[in-house]
Amino acid sequence: MLNFEFCSPTKFVFGRDTQQRVGSLVREFGGTRALIVYGGGSVVRSGLLDQVKASLDAAGVYHMELGGVKPNPRSDLVYEGIRICRENQLDFLLPIGGGSAIDTAKAIADGVPYDGDFWDLYTRKAEVKTALPHGCVLTIPAAGSEGSNSSVITKIEGNLKRGLSTEFHRPRFAVMNPELTFTLPRYQLGCGVTDMMAHIMERYFTNTKDVDLTDRLAEALLVSIREAAPRAMADTTDYEAHATLMWAGMLAHNNSVGVGREQDWASHQIGHEISAKYDTAHGASLAIVFPAWMQYVYKHDVKRFVQFATRVWGVDPAGKTDEEIAIAGIHAMQAFFLSLGMPATLEQGGGKAEDIPALAANVVNGRSGNFVKLFPPQIEEILHIASEAK
Amino acid sequence: MLNFEFCSPTKFVFGRDTQQRVGSLVREFGGTRALIVYGGGSVVRSGLLDQVKASLDAAGVYHMELGGVKPNPRSDLVYEGIRICRENQLDFLLPIGGGSAIDTAKAIADGVPYDGDFWDLYTRKAEVKTALPHGCVLTIPAAGSEGSNSSVITKIEGNLKRGLSTEFHRPRFAVMNPELTFTLPRYQLGCGVTDMMAHIMERYFTNTKDVDLTDRLAEALLVSIREAAPRAMADTTDYEAHATLMWAGMLAHNNSVGVGREQDWASHQIGHEISAKYDTAHGASLAIVFPAWMQYVYKHDVKRFVQFATRVWGVDPAGKTDEEIAIAGIHAMQAFFLSLGMPATLEQGGGKAEDIPALAANVVNGRSGNFVKLFPPQIEEILHIASEAK
Repeated sequence: MLNFEFCSPTKFVFGRDTQQRVGSLVREFGGTRALIVYGGGSVVRSGLLDQVKASLDAAGVYHMELGGVKPNPRSDLVYEGIRICRENQLDFLLPIGGGSAIDTAKAIADGVPYDGDFWDLYTRKAEVKTALPHGCVLTIPAAGSEGSNSSVITKIEGNLKRGLSTEFHRPRFAVMNPELTFTLPRYQLGCGVTDMMAHIMERYFTNTKDVDLTDRLAEALLVSIREAAPRAMADTTDYEAHATLMWAGMLAHNNSVGVGREQDWASHQIGHEISAKYDTAHGASLAIVFPAWMQYVYKHDVKRFVQFATRVWGVDPAGKTDEEIAIAGIHAMQAFFLSLGMPATLEQGGGKAEDIPALAANVVNGRSGNFVKLFPPQIEEILHIASEAK
Repeated sequence: MLNFEFCSPTKFVFGRDTQQRVGSLVREFGGTRALIVYGGGSVVRSGLLDQVKASLDAAGVYHMELGGVKPNPRSDLVYEGIRICRENQLDFLLPIGGGSAIDTAKAIADGVPYDGDFWDLYTRKAEVKTALPHGCVLTIPAAGSEGSNSSVITKIEGNLKRGLSTEFHRPRFAVMNPELTFTLPRYQLGCGVTDMMAHIMERYFTNTKDVDLTDRLAEALLVSIREAAPRAMADTTDYEAHATLMWAGMLAHNNSVGVGREQDWASHQIGHEISAKYDTAHGASLAIVFPAWMQYVYKHDVKRFVQFATRVWGVDPAGKTDEEIAIAGIHAMQAFFLSLGMPATLEQGGGKAEDIPALAANVVNGRSGNFVKLFPPQIEEILHIASEAK
């Protein structure tokens, strides 16, 4: 186990009707003038936006709105949010939605007090020294941004997708009502489930020894997600299944299961390139990359893949070699992703085999991964495994 | 799953040599004049106290000391600490030790700004409205006080042991170096392991439905503790085993595995009465009570005890009735406690069967528990199961 720091200070307010507490929560954390950040249709149509505004009004919190956040959220809306906050002296960001809305709000919160282009922070030209506070209302269990220190933004110029992790990115509060996820399209739910599992697996596959405690916690989350997801997909009003996914999605990415161990993140980085180029949904890009990555790396530590196959996917080891058990686990995972409506190949995700060299070359800093270190030639091999064009 | 709030804001600084960061951590959380609270010999003899003082000096933090905390910490030291803080304008509590030192510091932190007898807060005559900040250096993995909102103090007059939970009781930081636990006497380590398992089990046995996610997280902790404890008992320098116990002990009690479910806490309350009367170590009292409690209540939900037996204790269900599986799990747990050097009976813990009616009558508010509601007659039955005098 490696030395670590862990601090997940967010106040999680979980359960039915909790969106009615937003106004008092903003007040509790010092907000008086809030910018509500959201995507579009569903937050308005469902009446959620009006409920949140009523709660803010009741608490005496002035509010403005910035709608139009898209999946793979882009820099243009961040610039607009920074301008609105500065011109109107807003002091609190209040995203309603999933990772895209929350990550946009985090970037705005970074950018308002920064005397320069916020993108400098995402390219590491400058460091976040202070940020506006933010709290969120979660409607999509997936990105885990409600509890994480991460934000991922795509710069329109150059189509660059970059993530930034800083402790300023931990929300002050997260309102999590599973009922708000009942109306999610099934495809989006499938993407979310894939994303949260990927967050766990990026931490699970490690070279750090003696991490059995966090292994078991990670497996507990994966098994619970595996069991809850089909229920949630089959019955959009199954409160308990949606509640399990919502809470698991947070735990998957607040680093509970990542402490004290080297983490990987190659599949996310490769997936980001696919999303940036084809606007493939983030979860879908992970469903494409992760099985291919596993097939490429499993021999590096077959025992760990055997543990994954038997403890998470219930693979019966009887009569199988370690290698066969490992492969059966990878296949079980891919079959599960397919059952969620996820793409199996680069092409199904909108990509083309001819782009593979460019995708591989574009990965940040020309390298990726820790479990196995990957450079563009290895990333190309992984993308070929993911492609239909063999 | 029930609605819940969860906020565990403590900054955990975990690993080798982390005690050297205490000074800068106190500063980070606004402390300038600290009261160091500790037990006795080992903190001084090991040189830890000097290391902490050097770190405080280097950070320019003025410090005073209050030693002499005993297991089952008592009110007299709390009064003394409050007096010292007030007379010297101290602004930060810095306990070094386990639950006894941390709980004493929490009570002092509550009492300094309270205009009355701090015991009012523990008897619910008054509510904590503010408290001094505190951060801790953990040397005993057991009570989980380093991450919890709890504090338990024994009032000398009347020998009353009472707990108080408030969000003011969450430490600002917790320095957790597993090496600091290498010198623990084996009996104390055994008590600690029992205590942390009990914290998980008080949450595990619930009537709330659809809590599989937190069930699995709880089981992950219990299995990891079950596997690490014999290693740590056998080799006092096994860093990884001690690290697992230290981190598991925190997770056992910061409510990670208790959210969204009704909890029980009868065994703790009954154990507190045993400790208060005979000064039995807290963990030892739980080893006496928990198996007896289980034997008394398991028929209330045999399926949950079957799950506990098979998932945590590896009981093979083949050829057994549910009742037999449940009983086998309880026996496996008790055998495990015995292997840690814990007492099996009330008498081995220093108690007497003739005191059972008085012990049962003394339980707070005359009732206890949620999984099964217990009143003095039922508590007497449980204590009789725990006694050698049948």
